[in-house]
Amino acid sequence: MSEEERIDHVAHDDQEDDSYALNPRKIAAIMYTVETQDAEALREQMEPLHAADIADLLEQINSYDRRRLIELYGGEFDGEILSELDESIREEVIPLLSPQVLQDAVRELDSDDVVDLIETLDEPQQDAILDALTLSDRVAVVQSLSYPEYSAGRLMQREVVMGPQHWTVGQAIDYMRSQEDLPEDFYHIILVDPRMKPVAQVTLGKMLGAPRSRPLIEIAEEGFRTFEVTEEEGDVAYAFNQYHLISAPVVDEAERLVGVITIDDAIRVLDEEHEEDIMRLAGVGDGSLADRVLDTVKQRLPWLAVNLVTAIMASMVIAQFEDTISAMVALAVLMPIVASMGGNAGTQALTVAVRSIATRDLTGNNVWRVIRREVMVGLANGLVFAAIMGTVGIVWFGSPALGFVIATAMVINLVVAGLAGIGVPVVLEKIGVDPALASGAFVTTVTDIVGFFAFLGLAGIVLL
Amino acid sequence: MSEEERIDHVAHDDQEDDSYALNPRKIAAIMYTVETQDAEALREQMEPLHAADIADLLEQINSYDRRRLIELYGGEFDGEILSELDESIREEVIPLLSPQVLQDAVRELDSDDVVDLIETLDEPQQDAILDALTLSDRVAVVQSLSYPEYSAGRLMQREVVMGPQHWTVGQAIDYMRSQEDLPEDFYHIILVDPRMKPVAQVTLGKMLGAPRSRPLIEIAEEGFRTFEVTEEEGDVAYAFNQYHLISAPVVDEAERLVGVITIDDAIRVLDEEHEEDIMRLAGVGDGSLADRVLDTVKQRLPWLAVNLVTAIMASMVIAQFEDTISAMVALAVLMPIVASMGGNAGTQALTVAVRSIATRDLTGNNVWRVIRREVMVGLANGLVFAAIMGTVGIVWFGSPALGFVIATAMVINLVVAGLAGIGVPVVLEKIGVDPALASGAFVTTVTDIVGFFAFLGLAGIVLL
Repeated sequence: MSEEERIDHVAHDDQEDDSYALNPRKIAAIMYTVETQDAEALREQMEPLHAADIADLLEQINSYDRRRLIELYGGEFDGEILSELDESIREEVIPLLSPQVLQDAVRELDSDDVVDLIETLDEPQQDAILDALTLSDRVAVVQSLSYPEYSAGRLMQREVVMGPQHWTVGQAIDYMRSQEDLPEDFYHIILVDPRMKPVAQVTLGKMLGAPRSRPLIEIAEEGFRTFEVTEEEGDVAYAFNQYHLISAPVVDEAERLVGVITIDDAIRVLDEEHEEDIMRLAGVGDGSLADRVLDTVKQRLPWLAVNLVTAIMASMVIAQFEDTISAMVALAVLMPIVASMGGNAGTQALTVAVRSIATRDLTGNNVWRVIRREVMVGLANGLVFAAIMGTVGIVWFGSPALGFVIATAMVINLVVAGLAGIGVPVVLEKIGVDPALASGAFVTTVTDIVGFFAFLGLAGIVLL
Repeated sequence: MSEEERIDHVAHDDQEDDSYALNPRKIAAIMYTVETQDAEALREQMEPLHAADIADLLEQINSYDRRRLIELYGGEFDGEILSELDESIREEVIPLLSPQVLQDAVRELDSDDVVDLIETLDEPQQDAILDALTLSDRVAVVQSLSYPEYSAGRLMQREVVMGPQHWTVGQAIDYMRSQEDLPEDFYHIILVDPRMKPVAQVTLGKMLGAPRSRPLIEIAEEGFRTFEVTEEEGDVAYAFNQYHLISAPVVDEAERLVGVITIDDAIRVLDEEHEEDIMRLAGVGDGSLADRVLDTVKQRLPWLAVNLVTAIMASMVIAQFEDTISAMVALAVLMPIVASMGGNAGTQALTVAVRSIATRDLTGNNVWRVIRREVMVGLANGLVFAAIMGTVGIVWFGSPALGFVIATAMVINLVVAGLAGIGVPVVLEKIGVDPALASGAFVTTVTDIVGFFAFLGLAGIVLL
């Protein structure tokens, strides 16, 4: 469905809690209640919205409207909305909330959501939130914050459902019925040995399908795996995705159970990593729509500066051939074509390589095969476009020699583009640099320089 | 952790079922058993591997090794491995399996996995798999295949756990205990009215925490939502991500329950969409490492052809200024810099725009604000690089006039880059073209043409 159809679909639907509750009409209706300062109507409009939609709403309106909306909405502001907000907007919103509202908001969150909320904030804002927590929650959050950034310890929630390994289904069910506050979302009961080491886990579905007398260990899930608190969140998310996990226990250095990571945490990490890959490939740092002009300039300027250095290096190559160009200005007309085609072919190859490294499909096992393939692809595409450009050279400029020069330069540059497109990210990965971050600049430097050099150099030899 | 540390970590670990079981040493050990034709040793090596890892293994070795491995492994080949395989490898593997092995393999899969497996295959292979199914499964799969491609109907599994809306916790538990084959993974019991319309769902965790006498409807999950069979899978995946769903019922036109979509289906769609965005932004069709040279050439050639047209258009702009260049060859040296900076700035802006459209953060509500911001960013970056290049022009070529020309062209092109970077994807989205697919070519066409035109045009006026 296109966006328009989707909105129509919503409009024709009577359900109050429709999945796509946030559309321009809805936003207009909400802003009208803010305009008229009608707190009652605002609450009515907001009530059917999911916290994620309210967060989107706050991100899409401007700063002035945001302030007025929050002032009017005030006491209804809940913790999940804060969780869902983009960082920069979150920093702006927190000071607008009264201490009481902030306290109510954060107390209802799971410990991992509080950690996620708090780790992006400045210290005074962090303290405000920690103060709002109950003592035991505060201890849990501070403990989680003591683990390294981007570790499993930061990602996990402390609230776990567990039992001794000898329990039966019936004992587990009785235990759960007796608990006052089971976690909001959980999918397994984790079985631990007397030293609190997790030994297995049982899905709730399997538990419900088994008789009360059945020992839990007999219906434990296959492929049980635990994560260490210090494990990198990217590796955790990869494992969740690769092995279709739904939740998994986290253990400390002594292999004791300390928390549990659920699929929603893993999805958030996967999302962030995808986002980062795309943004880095385009040289846009950690950009988001919500950033201010100055922040955006600061994010993008370094990459443009790198590109400027690249471009100047390419210019210096051209400068070596000023005499050649003077003798035949047509060369100046055609030379960007070879460089541009090389840049594009290089970007294609490097994007596939960067993605394959990220998904762990490109490894030491197949790297030579992949390099060989890229060279073949470059050669094949090079020959096709050599034929086209050779013809263009002859037809446009009436010079078979010029056609030969551009055709040969094209083949050379597309083969080099394939080689650089795969070689640069692989080498960067080896030396510990994120290939998504730096490959683009290197590859286009190579294709620009080789493109200009091959074309103008050959022209100097063949044509003059 | 880096790749090296990860492998070390695995090597120092005794656990047989370690999360990262597939490393070069492991692959070497497996291939050794194939080399020595030792089927027993091969089974031992493969036994601790997850199906997803076996699929990765098959993708990473070459075609010849693949065939030998499968022949030796033979009867152990299970359905999950087929599910996890990349399409092109899957097509190669299926004919290598004996009919009996194929039958055993597909019979153990959920209906959605069979559909996923089958929809990418040629007709004879599809038939082979359909024939392997039991009658009732075959009917379910054929029914799913009758829904449009990329619809919720294709994504859902037919196996659901449901009960009448008046049931208590105890009744539901008794029912589940009496069932022979509950689905492998399920997270809710869906409550239906007498006409089979889903009215609510209860998480298994909530059920387990409640007394037997409790009516299920009282502990139903908030924010209950259903999807229609014809709904686009991208919208379904978006809703799962936005609202942190774990599973949700699918209904037909008559609002009757027909299946359930679980989080792993949604993650697969999200993954595919991310992949598609990155690949399309780089002009790489649906490329994967496993594709053969010819397939890869076919995927990439069209985008290079589009780029060639773009590059030739830019050349034609340059051709208009041949006399200007003849008079001052330094212009040929410097002109690629302006175009290249514009291209990069445009790519930055368009990547943020394409992502924001995909995540539904860029909408009619904020598009004008975002456009204004991009222009401001272009202006700011333009002024910075104008100052730098102005200085370079003066120092390198000793010409303040040349410095002025390149500085002015730089500002113009970076502002245009910002405008085009946001404007092109927004317009493409409006007219129903995937902005990830086509924006790049349009934006660089604009920045190349404007870059060359502004620089050479100004040079003609100011310098000659």
